[in-house]
Amino acid sequence: MEYLITDTRTGVAERDFSLDNSALPNDFPLAFDCRHQTLRGGKQEGSEVITLNVGDLSVAVSPSRGMGVLYAQQGDLRLGWDSPVKEVVNPSFIELSKHGGLGWLEGFNELVARCGYQWSGHPGMDGDEMLTLHGQIQNIPASVVRLTVEDAPPYRVRLSGRVDERCFKKAEFEVWMHLVITPGQVGFTIEDELINRGSYPKEYQALYHNNFGAPILEEGARVRVPASQVSPFNVRAAEGLASWASMPAPREGFDEEVFNIRPIGDSQGDTLALFHNAAADRGVAMSFNLQQLPVLTLWKNCDTLEQGYVVGLEPGTSFAYNRRYQRDLGLVPTIGPGESRSFVVKFDLLLDSAAVESAEARVESLQGDADLELRAEPLVAL
Amino acid sequence: MEYLITDTRTGVAERDFSLDNSALPNDFPLAFDCRHQTLRGGKQEGSEVITLNVGDLSVAVSPSRGMGVLYAQQGDLRLGWDSPVKEVVNPSFIELSKHGGLGWLEGFNELVARCGYQWSGHPGMDGDEMLTLHGQIQNIPASVVRLTVEDAPPYRVRLSGRVDERCFKKAEFEVWMHLVITPGQVGFTIEDELINRGSYPKEYQALYHNNFGAPILEEGARVRVPASQVSPFNVRAAEGLASWASMPAPREGFDEEVFNIRPIGDSQGDTLALFHNAAADRGVAMSFNLQQLPVLTLWKNCDTLEQGYVVGLEPGTSFAYNRRYQRDLGLVPTIGPGESRSFVVKFDLLLDSAAVESAEARVESLQGDADLELRAEPLVAL
Amino acid sequence: MEYLITDTRTGVAERDFSLDNSALPNDFPLAFDCRHQTLRGGKQEGSEVITLNVGDLSVAVSPSRGMGVLYAQQGDLRLGWDSPVKEVVNPSFIELSKHGGLGWLEGFNELVARCGYQWSGHPGMDGDEMLTLHGQIQNIPASVVRLTVEDAPPYRVRLSGRVDERCFKKAEFEVWMHLVITPGQVGFTIEDELINRGSYPKEYQALYHNNFGAPILEEGARVRVPASQVSPFNVRAAEGLASWASMPAPREGFDEEVFNIRPIGDSQGDTLALFHNAAADRGVAMSFNLQQLPVLTLWKNCDTLEQGYVVGLEPGTSFAYNRRYQRDLGLVPTIGPGESRSFVVKFDLLLDSAAVESAEARVESLQGDADLELRAEPLVAL
Repeated sequence: MEYLITDTRTGVAERDFSLDNSALPNDFPLAFDCRHQTLRGGKQEGSEVITLNVGDLSVAVSPSRGMGVLYAQQGDLRLGWDSPVKEVVNPSFIELSKHGGLGWLEGFNELVARCGYQWSGHPGMDGDEMLTLHGQIQNIPASVVRLTVEDAPPYRVRLSGRVDERCFKKAEFEVWMHLVITPGQVGFTIEDELINRGSYPKEYQALYHNNFGAPILEEGARVRVPASQVSPFNVRAAEGLASWASMPAPREGFDEEVFNIRPIGDSQGDTLALFHNAAADRGVAMSFNLQQLPVLTLWKNCDTLEQGYVVGLEPGTSFAYNRRYQRDLGLVPTIGPGESRSFVVKFDLLLDSAAVESAEARVESLQGDADLELRAEPLVAL
Repeated sequence: MEYLITDTRTGVAERDFSLDNSALPNDFPLAFDCRHQTLRGGKQEGSEVITLNVGDLSVAVSPSRGMGVLYAQQGDLRLGWDSPVKEVVNPSFIELSKHGGLGWLEGFNELVARCGYQWSGHPGMDGDEMLTLHGQIQNIPASVVRLTVEDAPPYRVRLSGRVDERCFKKAEFEVWMHLVITPGQVGFTIEDELINRGSYPKEYQALYHNNFGAPILEEGARVRVPASQVSPFNVRAAEGLASWASMPAPREGFDEEVFNIRPIGDSQGDTLALFHNAAADRGVAMSFNLQQLPVLTLWKNCDTLEQGYVVGLEPGTSFAYNRRYQRDLGLVPTIGPGESRSFVVKFDLLLDSAAVESAEARVESLQGDADLELRAEPLVAL
Repeated sequence: MEYLITDTRTGVAERDFSLDNSALPNDFPLAFDCRHQTLRGGKQEGSEVITLNVGDLSVAVSPSRGMGVLYAQQGDLRLGWDSPVKEVVNPSFIELSKHGGLGWLEGFNELVARCGYQWSGHPGMDGDEMLTLHGQIQNIPASVVRLTVEDAPPYRVRLSGRVDERCFKKAEFEVWMHLVITPGQVGFTIEDELINRGSYPKEYQALYHNNFGAPILEEGARVRVPASQVSPFNVRAAEGLASWASMPAPREGFDEEVFNIRPIGDSQGDTLALFHNAAADRGVAMSFNLQQLPVLTLWKNCDTLEQGYVVGLEPGTSFAYNRRYQRDLGLVPTIGPGESRSFVVKFDLLLDSAAVESAEARVESLQGDADLELRAEPLVAL
C-alpha cells in the first residue's frame, strides 16, 4: 500500500495524514501509527513532522528539513540529542550565508542530518565558490513524500522523500531518501539515492551527520570501529588522540575534538561503527559500506549539557574539511550525467549487553589482526 | 468589473478566487476562466499562481514571484521553457546573496522574469554596493493583485499586481505590473509602470528576461530584429558572432552565448523582435519601444535539454553586464522623485507561416537600408 | 487570567484569538479588546499582529517580528512613524546579510524595534565575525506568546513573548519580552529579560530603537534629556551639534544626524528622555535605568516625509557604532552562564501641556547644576 502525502508535480499535499492498523492488513504484526503534523510558532512555523510508531519503535522525520531524522526511540533508548536549537526550524528562516557560512547551525538538532550533496564540510572558499557549512540539502523541503507499507511479510514500512538540489547552471541533483523499518529489526535503515539529472559530471559529497547524546553518551561511553587509521582533524584534536574512542563527562571548555577514521570493511566493503554507553548495555550500531561511504568522522562535542553534549559518528564520502582540502585526499568523487549513487546506513538500537557484545564481536572480527595507526599529524594542514 | 484578490493595505486575500463566464456579461466573446491556486510542498510551499484562460489562450502568473509569467499556451504553441528548476519557488526560500550573488538562479524558470528595478545584470560589486544577479523584483511577492474585465468591447482582461521594492534609505520603488489580454489578439501585453515614491532621483534598470524553449526553439530556429549593431557580450560569444541569429540543436558544452543588440525602431521608437522555428511556421513577436527599453539582449543558452535549452530575448534599459560597466554605455537611467516610467512589451503568438511572414515583413521594413554592424569586440572588457 | 496564544513546545497556536470585557472580571475598569491577526499578501504573508485596546490606548505588537511594537495610539496622539517600508515584513523574506549586512532595513518600520542581543549597531566585521545591522532579534518570530490580565486591581494587562536567539556553538539567548499596560497609566511599559542559557559568558548588546514621527515630530519639536555629555556620532553629525536637541522641518538632503548622549540619572540610575512637539503640548517620555541601559542614542532622521521623517530615542547598553568600536568605550557588557539581564523602558504618552511640563520638570531636576558637555569630536574615529 502506498500513500502519497506530498507531490509538488501533481499538487498532492495531505496535511492531516494519519494511518494506523485499521488501514493495514489484519496480519500486520505490530502496532502501527503514522501521523503528519504541521508545527506552528517561532521558527518552526510551517515545519512538517511525520512520526512513525512501529511496534515499540518511534521515529520522527521532518520533510521540511530535507527528510532529516529528528530522533528515534525504543523503550528508554533514545537516539538523538539535546541541541541548544530547540525548534524544528523551517528553512524559510535559515540564511546559510550568515556568519561567514555558518547559518546551518541555527537549525541543527537532528539525529540524522544529511550533509551534501554538492558539497559538505566546513565553510569557506573553494576556488571562487563560497561553500557554506555542510551544504544545502538539510534546508530544502521535500518535493515528494510517500509512505509505503508492504502488504505481505516482512511488511516493510518505508517513508520516502525526494529532495531536489536544483539551481540553473549549477546543480540538478535529485535525492530519494527512504527510511525503512522492517518489523523484527530493532532499528531502521536509511537508503538514499542521489541522481544527477544534469548533463555534466559533477563533484559531490555526502556525509551522514548522525548525532547521539544521552543515554548512550556519558562518561566512559565508547566508540568501536574496525579501522586502519585514526588521525586528528586539527591541532586541537591532536591533544586528545590517545583517548579518541572514549568519551569524557560533559566538560566546560571541551568544545570539540574531531577525528578522521579510515574504517576496515569485509570483502564487500561492509563495515560498522558502534557506540555504546559506559556499562556496555545500551548502544547503537551503524552499518554502512565503504564503497559508498569510505570514511568516517568522529565528532566528540563533549562540552556541557547546555552547549549540546553530543557525539557524531558520520560516515561519508569525505571528511569534514572544506572541499578544497579533500581533492588531494581523493575524497571528492564525481557523479556522471544520469548516474546515481546509493548510500545506505543501517541503525541498530542495541538494547542490552548481548546486543552490544554481538556488535563488538563484529567490530573485532573485521579488525582481525590489522593494525590501527594512530597518526599524530592531521591529514590536512589547516 | 474589478476583482480584488490581494491587498495588503486593506487585508484582502482571496485565496480561493475563481471566475468564469457566468460572472461576465453575456456578450463576453470568449470562454473565460480565472483560477487562483496556492501551491504546496517543496520550495513551492505557499507560492500563489493565477491561471487565466481566455478563449484558447492560457497564461499563468505567480504573484508570489513578482507577477512573473510562468508560461503562455495557445493550442500547441507554448511560450516558456523547461528549466532544471521545476517548482514555483517561494521567495521565502531564496537567498539572493548565496553563491556570490547567484541565489536568483535557484528560482529561475519563467517565460517572463523581470530583472530590476534598482539594478539588473550580472552580480558583483558596483562601488561599495554588492549587486546580486538581476535584482530583487522577481523574488518579491505582490502586495496588490487585481483582476479587471471590461464590461464592453473590446472586453480587455487585465491581471494587475503591485510589487514594491522598498528598503529604508535605499529604495521606494512601486511597480504596477499589468498583463493584458484583448480578445481577438493572439497573445498578451505586459504593461508595467515603475514609480519612484522616494524624494531623490535614483538609478534604475529594467530588463525583461523573456525565455523560449520548444516548440519555437529548435535547430534552425531564428531571431530576427531590425538592428544597427550586434556585438558579443564577452569573448565566449565572440566565437559565435557570425551565426548569432540562428539556433543550434541542443549541444553538450555549448553553455551560452550572449549578444548585445541595438535595435532600430520607427519614428516613434517602436520596434519588435521576432523568434521563429526552423520551418518559420511558429513563433513569437515581441513589440516594444526604444524610448522605454533601448537595447536588447539575446541569450542563446543552447546547451542540452536537461540543462535548460532556452533562448532569451530581453528588451531592457541595459544590457546584462553588471551595473558598474553600463554607466559608460549610457545605459543606467535615472528616475526622479515622484516620476514614473512605463515599460510595455507585447507578445504576439505566431501560429502559422502567414503570421511569421507578417512579422518578418515588419522587421525588414524597419531595417530598410540601414546597415547592421557585426562588431567583433565586446562593448565591455570584462 | 492567562491566555496562551503560542507555545512551540506544547504545540499551542491560537490563530483566531480574541478577548474582550465579556471574559474579564465585571469590575475591570476599562473597555478591553485584544485581537490576533495573521496578515496576508506581499512580504507580510503569514505575519502575526496582536492589537490591544485598553481604554483609549491602542497598541499593536508583531510576534512574527520579535514582539516589535508597531505603534501606540491614544486619541490623536500616535507614537510611531511612517516608514517607506509599509508592510509588517515576515522575517522569512528578510536576508540580513544582503547589501553588506543592511537587510534589516527592508523590514524596519516599528515604534519599538529591539536591536540585539548578540550584537547591535552598524554592520561590518568585528574580528573575523560579520555583524549585520542591529542584530537578529527583530527578525526572529516569538516561540511563546501569552496574554495575562490580572483579576484584581490594578488589573495589569501583560502581553508576553519569548524570542530565542539560538545557534549551536554561538548563542543560547532567551529573551522574555513583556508589554505591560496598567489601567490608569497613559502609556505602556516594556519589561524585557535576557537570559543566557549557555555555559559561557557572552558579550551582548541591547538597544531600544524607539521611533517617532508626526504628530510629535515637527519643526521645533524638542528632545530633553538630563545629560552630562552629547557628542556627534560622526563628522556629519558634528555639523549639527549646536542644535542637537531641536528638530527641523522635513528637509531634502538632511539624511540623518546621530548623537551619543550620556544621560544623568538619580541615585538609583533612573532617568528619562522626553520628546515633545513645538507647542510642548504633546509628547512622549521614556523612563529607563542607567544600570540597565547606560547610554542613549538620538537619531535625527529629519529628511523628507517620503524618506521617513523620524526621530529615534534609543536607550542602550551601547551606542550605534559597530561592536568593534565599543569595547574601548566600555559599552560591550558580558552576561554569564545562567544569568539574566533586565531592561525596562516605560513609555508615557503626554497628552497636554501639563503632562509635558511635568516631564520637563523631572528632566530639569535630574540635570540640576550638572554641566552638559557638548563634545565637538566624535567618540570614535570611523
